[in-house]
Amino acid sequence: MTIDFARRMANVRPSTIREILKVTEQLHVISFAGGLPAPELFPVEDVLAATERVLRGKGASALQYGATEGAASLRDTLAAEMRLRGIRCAADDVLVTTGSQQALDLIGRVFIDPGDCVLTESPTYLAAIQAFQVYEARFVTLPTDEQGLIPDALPAIIARERPKFLYTIPNFQNPTGITLSAERRQRLYAIAAEHGLLMVEDDPYGKLRYSGQEIPSIKSLDDRGQVLYLSTVSKTIAPGLRVGWVVGQKDILRKLTLAKQGADLHTSSFAQLIVDTYLTEFDSPAHVEKIRHAYGERFARMNAALGRHLGDRVRWTHPEGGMFLWVTCPESVDTNDLMLKAVDQHVLFVPGRDFFPDASGHRFMRLNFSNSKPDQIDEGISRLAHVFEAVANPVGQ
Amino acid sequence: MTIDFARRMANVRPSTIREILKVTEQLHVISFAGGLPAPELFPVEDVLAATERVLRGKGASALQYGATEGAASLRDTLAAEMRLRGIRCAADDVLVTTGSQQALDLIGRVFIDPGDCVLTESPTYLAAIQAFQVYEARFVTLPTDEQGLIPDALPAIIARERPKFLYTIPNFQNPTGITLSAERRQRLYAIAAEHGLLMVEDDPYGKLRYSGQEIPSIKSLDDRGQVLYLSTVSKTIAPGLRVGWVVGQKDILRKLTLAKQGADLHTSSFAQLIVDTYLTEFDSPAHVEKIRHAYGERFARMNAALGRHLGDRVRWTHPEGGMFLWVTCPESVDTNDLMLKAVDQHVLFVPGRDFFPDASGHRFMRLNFSNSKPDQIDEGISRLAHVFEAVANPVGQ
Repeated sequence: MTIDFARRMANVRPSTIREILKVTEQLHVISFAGGLPAPELFPVEDVLAATERVLRGKGASALQYGATEGAASLRDTLAAEMRLRGIRCAADDVLVTTGSQQALDLIGRVFIDPGDCVLTESPTYLAAIQAFQVYEARFVTLPTDEQGLIPDALPAIIARERPKFLYTIPNFQNPTGITLSAERRQRLYAIAAEHGLLMVEDDPYGKLRYSGQEIPSIKSLDDRGQVLYLSTVSKTIAPGLRVGWVVGQKDILRKLTLAKQGADLHTSSFAQLIVDTYLTEFDSPAHVEKIRHAYGERFARMNAALGRHLGDRVRWTHPEGGMFLWVTCPESVDTNDLMLKAVDQHVLFVPGRDFFPDASGHRFMRLNFSNSKPDQIDEGISRLAHVFEAVANPVGQ
Repeated sequence: MTIDFARRMANVRPSTIREILKVTEQLHVISFAGGLPAPELFPVEDVLAATERVLRGKGASALQYGATEGAASLRDTLAAEMRLRGIRCAADDVLVTTGSQQALDLIGRVFIDPGDCVLTESPTYLAAIQAFQVYEARFVTLPTDEQGLIPDALPAIIARERPKFLYTIPNFQNPTGITLSAERRQRLYAIAAEHGLLMVEDDPYGKLRYSGQEIPSIKSLDDRGQVLYLSTVSKTIAPGLRVGWVVGQKDILRKLTLAKQGADLHTSSFAQLIVDTYLTEFDSPAHVEKIRHAYGERFARMNAALGRHLGDRVRWTHPEGGMFLWVTCPESVDTNDLMLKAVDQHVLFVPGRDFFPDASGHRFMRLNFSNSKPDQIDEGISRLAHVFEAVANPVGQ
């Protein structure tokens, strides 16, 4: 049989990171590659207690099919959480998704026809690139600096490219860890509102701030239904539950819901009710506090280790939260080559190319600091420095 | 802001059934509409016990991100289940999906370019229509009779339409309840093999046989990687877990996995490990036996009630398993009209139109017998008969 695949799949690059994740379970490997939370901090006992309450209290509805929009009680709870984040929101404004990744896919499905322009930061989240590639998006990247997106270039780009939407991760961006300043958020929103540009604000990490001041979301400025806000419990409870959500204008939510019907009918009722019970009946804020604190320590540890071992060779970002920092190597270094040697030394990171829609970015690498214990961070950066020396000063040259 | 949706969404019809499901939670409503399992039969205690074992034994991996292909232990367990169903299968041949619905979506994504032909039974599963519509499939329906698809017309249709694949539900089909005979399965597979036609065999209900002899799946005949076999735990454990799977040729699974990366990264690790533990450490066969028995009784009850109340007005199928039967009304009846009146009488069903890609089928209705208790079945069919009388003999005509 000759297998005749659809044209769209030709555009989709496999994700290096997903391939890397497969080897991270090997012993002795120190991985700065995945975007994994610290598993030892998962609230295992509370999730178990929440499961018990759910199954004993409403077992039938937890195990039955449910509405595509999500469980009513969870949508209520998430709307309340949104209001705490300064976003005007009722349960009807929330669509529960199978992780934030599904929200990206549904947005691609609902908005992108082949060749349509999507604006992104550069670099940006690789799985967002992948999600939009399926729908044959044409990516146009926006200029950025150490404060994130530079808004001033936007009007000309909108006029020239007619983008369907702008995709941004304003808090502790993946992969750079950079946070968009309050002023730029306001300016960006003003431009988007003026030009009728839809914004997709992806905020998986916002609650993981370990230093500095919280900055209001772009969505909290949104009085015109111009912003789709995405978040998830993957970083604050557990990714294995696959529960995320979108907040947005009702017309758009209706289309996303219709798209979700075809995609997976609905997100696990079981996981939704457990998340709802956990958020409403357990001490979720204390748990998030514990995570913030641990990640702050891990960032400090990685920052210090980088300073010790590679301080004169590379530059890196200093995020105030989240799970990643971004390393800039000398122009002569290709981090794909570095990666191959790093694997031999049992230390992993993600080379920069995956985060650029045009696969540029050979001199960058993303380091995750949430998933390794402090001692492993020291050891891993030390291994990385050895690899770096070997690549930057090859024997015989 | 003018919202500019993608063209593909113009093709997608909202599903009447999903809308209906929203009202089924109202009191006094007897619903033969949804495809819902009997909630009182859910193995609530065993799921709770399995959750406890999973969280206490491997809490970190149950709550962490996982491989897109699915949890290794579950893929092993499902491969063993496949071998019990007569299908040659190793763990590598299995992709875990977020319910069978996601498998349909991924198949659409991987195979269908706009305008590509998909062959289906007529009527067929409405959410399959919806899943493939997103990718702008062109549907061509195959002739069927009371034994299911008629294979002999297939070669000419293949030559004329160049279909990407044939989608079929051979066991207790949704919506008709009809089972494809063994002879026809062999004939169908032989034709597909000869013409290099991919078959998608959707088997959510196969284990719910309450009478007659089991018939080998089409996939069990497949020595050329010509068949994708889909199944799910939605009917044998619980739909709220959203765990399904696809068995197929490795090249195709690789593409489906790549598509799944963009769609939702992976299916809930938590749900996967619970399902695995439930299947390997609890008495799943005894539970399935209990469901079969109950559904057999419910079919008998509905069959008898239809005979009593509507025996001289309509015809219906006599499925040997599954959850649905299919009613043929006189040509003059439009079941969409009937539905509106039935809602007033607090009894629900799904009108036939949703199950036809071309929205024909005005005289049919699908009745679900798994979700109502025996007494409700009697009462519901009696209400339906009243509605039927009122429509068929309107006052003043």
